Amino acid sequence: MVNWNNFDKLNSYKRLAGLKGKVNLKEVMSGANGAERVAKYSVAMSNGMAYNFASKEVDDEVLDALQELADEAQLVEKYKELYNGAVINTGEKRLVLHQLTRGQLGDAVVSDGVNKRDFYVKQQERIAEFANKVHAGQIVNEKGEKFTTVVQIGIGGSDLGPRAMYLALENWAKVNGEFKMEAHFISNVDPDDASAVLAGIDVSKSIFILVSKSGTTLETLTNESFVKDALAKAGLDASKHMIAVTSETSPLAKNEGYLDAFFMDDYIGGRYSSSSSVGGAVLSLAFGPEIFARFLNGAAAEDETGKNADIRKNPAMLDALIGVYERNFLGYESTAVLPYSQGLSRFPAHLQQLDMESNGKSVNRFGEPVDYVTGPVIFGEPGTNGQHSFYQLLHQGTNIIPLQFVGFKKSQMANDVVIENSTSQQKLCANVVAQIMAFACGKDDDNKNKYFAGGRPSSLITGEMLTPETLGALLAHFENKVMFQGFVWNVNSFDQEGVQLGKTLAKKVLAGDTSDALAAYAKLLEI
Amino acid sequence: MVNWNNFDKLNSYKRLAGLKGKVNLKEVMSGANGAERVAKYSVAMSNGMAYNFASKEVDDEVLDALQELADEAQLVEKYKELYNGAVINTGEKRLVLHQLTRGQLGDAVVSDGVNKRDFYVKQQERIAEFANKVHAGQIVNEKGEKFTTVVQIGIGGSDLGPRAMYLALENWAKVNGEFKMEAHFISNVDPDDASAVLAGIDVSKSIFILVSKSGTTLETLTNESFVKDALAKAGLDASKHMIAVTSETSPLAKNEGYLDAFFMDDYIGGRYSSSSSVGGAVLSLAFGPEIFARFLNGAAAEDETGKNADIRKNPAMLDALIGVYERNFLGYESTAVLPYSQGLSRFPAHLQQLDMESNGKSVNRFGEPVDYVTGPVIFGEPGTNGQHSFYQLLHQGTNIIPLQFVGFKKSQMANDVVIENSTSQQKLCANVVAQIMAFACGKDDDNKNKYFAGGRPSSLITGEMLTPETLGALLAHFENKVMFQGFVWNVNSFDQEGVQLGKTLAKKVLAGDTSDALAAYAKLLEI
Repeated sequence: MVNWNNFDKLNSYKRLAGLKGKVNLKEVMSGANGAERVAKYSVAMSNGMAYNFASKEVDDEVLDALQELADEAQLVEKYKELYNGAVINTGEKRLVLHQLTRGQLGDAVVSDGVNKRDFYVKQQERIAEFANKVHAGQIVNEKGEKFTTVVQIGIGGSDLGPRAMYLALENWAKVNGEFKMEAHFISNVDPDDASAVLAGIDVSKSIFILVSKSGTTLETLTNESFVKDALAKAGLDASKHMIAVTSETSPLAKNEGYLDAFFMDDYIGGRYSSSSSVGGAVLSLAFGPEIFARFLNGAAAEDETGKNADIRKNPAMLDALIGVYERNFLGYESTAVLPYSQGLSRFPAHLQQLDMESNGKSVNRFGEPVDYVTGPVIFGEPGTNGQHSFYQLLHQGTNIIPLQFVGFKKSQMANDVVIENSTSQQKLCANVVAQIMAFACGKDDDNKNKYFAGGRPSSLITGEMLTPETLGALLAHFENKVMFQGFVWNVNSFDQEGVQLGKTLAKKVLAGDTSDALAAYAKLLEI
Repeated sequence: MVNWNNFDKLNSYKRLAGLKGKVNLKEVMSGANGAERVAKYSVAMSNGMAYNFASKEVDDEVLDALQELADEAQLVEKYKELYNGAVINTGEKRLVLHQLTRGQLGDAVVSDGVNKRDFYVKQQERIAEFANKVHAGQIVNEKGEKFTTVVQIGIGGSDLGPRAMYLALENWAKVNGEFKMEAHFISNVDPDDASAVLAGIDVSKSIFILVSKSGTTLETLTNESFVKDALAKAGLDASKHMIAVTSETSPLAKNEGYLDAFFMDDYIGGRYSSSSSVGGAVLSLAFGPEIFARFLNGAAAEDETGKNADIRKNPAMLDALIGVYERNFLGYESTAVLPYSQGLSRFPAHLQQLDMESNGKSVNRFGEPVDYVTGPVIFGEPGTNGQHSFYQLLHQGTNIIPLQFVGFKKSQMANDVVIENSTSQQKLCANVVAQIMAFACGKDDDNKNKYFAGGRPSSLITGEMLTPETLGALLAHFENKVMFQGFVWNVNSFDQEGVQLGKTLAKKVLAGDTSDALAAYAKLLEI
């Protein structure tokens, strides 16, 4: 049995508090010692990737204390409970099974008589069959023409993750002959969002994927109506252009209004659904089911690395623990995610949801207020763009922001130019390593405006190239990092009660059921 | 003469410190008092907009103290110095004249014998003439065909601002018959960025705008070569497809490699350049010079509101002062910008640069370290998308993040559907006001997982619709907010020395001039 104790009740909490400020990053990263750290402070990930933490404010003593924390908080045991089907999402009394969409990590998980791994695999097979028929021209529009475009209608986890994954592989697929259909996304209830997407596509050759687990998400149903209006105006039969991704019990399942329906269940949270049917349908249609399968394999391999009890061999767990150390003992409030890869342009936006919605909590899993800070603010943009934007504050601002860099040796499109004796890809890679050292060691200058204090911690994930496999591994890494941090903070990382109140009040405004300040605000926007 | 004193040397600093925690937001926003605050705590902006700060942790006493701060820090006097041409950018010994691109706020500014307002207007006229000729088919490609596409090549301020402005008006222009040419942007040195843009356009009908003030920005010159390669491969003469936006003294000026060159100068920082030729060329080509002129007029009107010494009549100054109060006395480290308008999808990314690069400083304008915190972390995404993403942490996380909402009464594309008795636009507006109240007042619940503490401050900027004028006003509001905050913190908001060290080290890596940790890192990515 595992124990679910608050973080500040653990012995390692006191031990770590005592180590605060022990490591002077500028000092340890200077000279030969710095080079040794870069070689030593690295953990292998799957798919040829690695997590390097040389420029973090840790040393062997801090790592030992973090190992004690991992052991005391029973992190691998809790992960095992999760993948073996315990009710980890206590608030909603649900299992947490997103890892099971990509592999069988432990025991068979059977719920209501259904083997859940079989269920997820079956949905993948059904999607693959559907996608193959669309690509082969066996499922066509009313005129018998092939579909060329897929449009995902969903919000939050039904949008950010799948969109980030699509953008990450779009150009790779184009140059590798794996590009099947263009994908678009409609998410915002702002009518300008749907209007703009619809104006840019040929609706007669488009398949729309309506994604809503409950089948009741207001934004998504509103946008569905928007799309159905557009299809009707174009003289098209909506039921020949729409599929649903939903739960088996939702009103969208077994509904004649859709060409087909593919299922998820309550055991996969929205922000963890990229590897479920939610990501599967759009990615399989866009790139083919084989590419989606490769993405799942990449994630499955990374999920395996999370089982290792030795933090020096468990990249997601180590990343999580260092993040906790920075947040709770070094006092850093935010973390920036900085992928040096244009394909990952929306990956930070996905991680923003993944992390902030999972661990932005003030109560533990038993609903008791905690006395320590939990999830950080997450933000980021791809390098080198960020360098010309907000890096000024990261280098010389009054607060320290830990940084999470990602870099690949090769570009995706293999199209490059040599300027001043280096390729663009070499410049890109030179920039990421230069930034890490600039942040860690700074630079002395008598002109204090040109002085860099250094001591600003960062980590670096490296890989060969952004491919379906490495993308899957990257996603799993961060999902598991967030999970392990939630375990340490003893929060439920899998519910999101904080989004409910706004929805309730918005309904009141629309029903005219307001008074006082809410009514006054509604008047400002003439609702 | 104005005095440039550090913030903590002012009397109002102590007074404000004493007012910390005075206002209980949950209490003051409840009941009739809350409605009164919504009516009273509002400042008119230009172009029919308003800044409402009812849900901020201020009352009349705090406002009086902020007024004292504004007076003591001589904020309007400093603004006047700036627009009258003082050397406000002390580090680089430069004037700061971006407001002058949109209007004459004070005295004529003459530098090196040139009236700077005349200079900026002349560039606008030259751009207008060029754009009109392109639109009229008087400037055409080698085959005599009209250009259909414009591609901006630039990074940082040459990218984020113009891109955000383009996206903000793209759909508005399309439905209002003002759309002339499609625009794309190449910024990242990652070769996949340029490759993807080039793969998606017809280069033979494209005009490329090379934007670099110095003419030496490595990323931009690299991408220019990338584009020239592509033009050459297509058998096209690059000099017939490229214009430059640069300074008069740069190698790109009077250069036969370009169709034409339009100028900016050292008195407009990159992040403040959307209203200069940097934004002017691409926006005038995309939408026509009249639309760009309307955008400038909107900004000019808002710049005028910044002159008022009464903080209750000066929206940017009040916004700035409340932000300082939150940052330095209430201890909030980040600010989220949440526009409820799909058109503003990249506006937060622009503000992220604008704010963090301007005020992310640890030394005052004389190069002396300051003993107080300065610029916050800025992040954001459009509502309602953010609601389904990171709002969980904003509502129930352990840190308080002040919020900056923006909402418009009408959508841009005037295309809408009624579902459950309300339009999408009404739902959008209902959500923004509901969120404000949920953040301010929270909700009691015996189940602490469903409990909302409230007390989370936000402001709301409202307008009729996102148009060229209101967009200009919005931009000027935030530029001036950042400027006033820089005045309070006594930092130079107009240089960016913090970006230099990374550039220097990246060059060393590319030259093979590294050792120790930097060399070890370079090896990881096989540079």
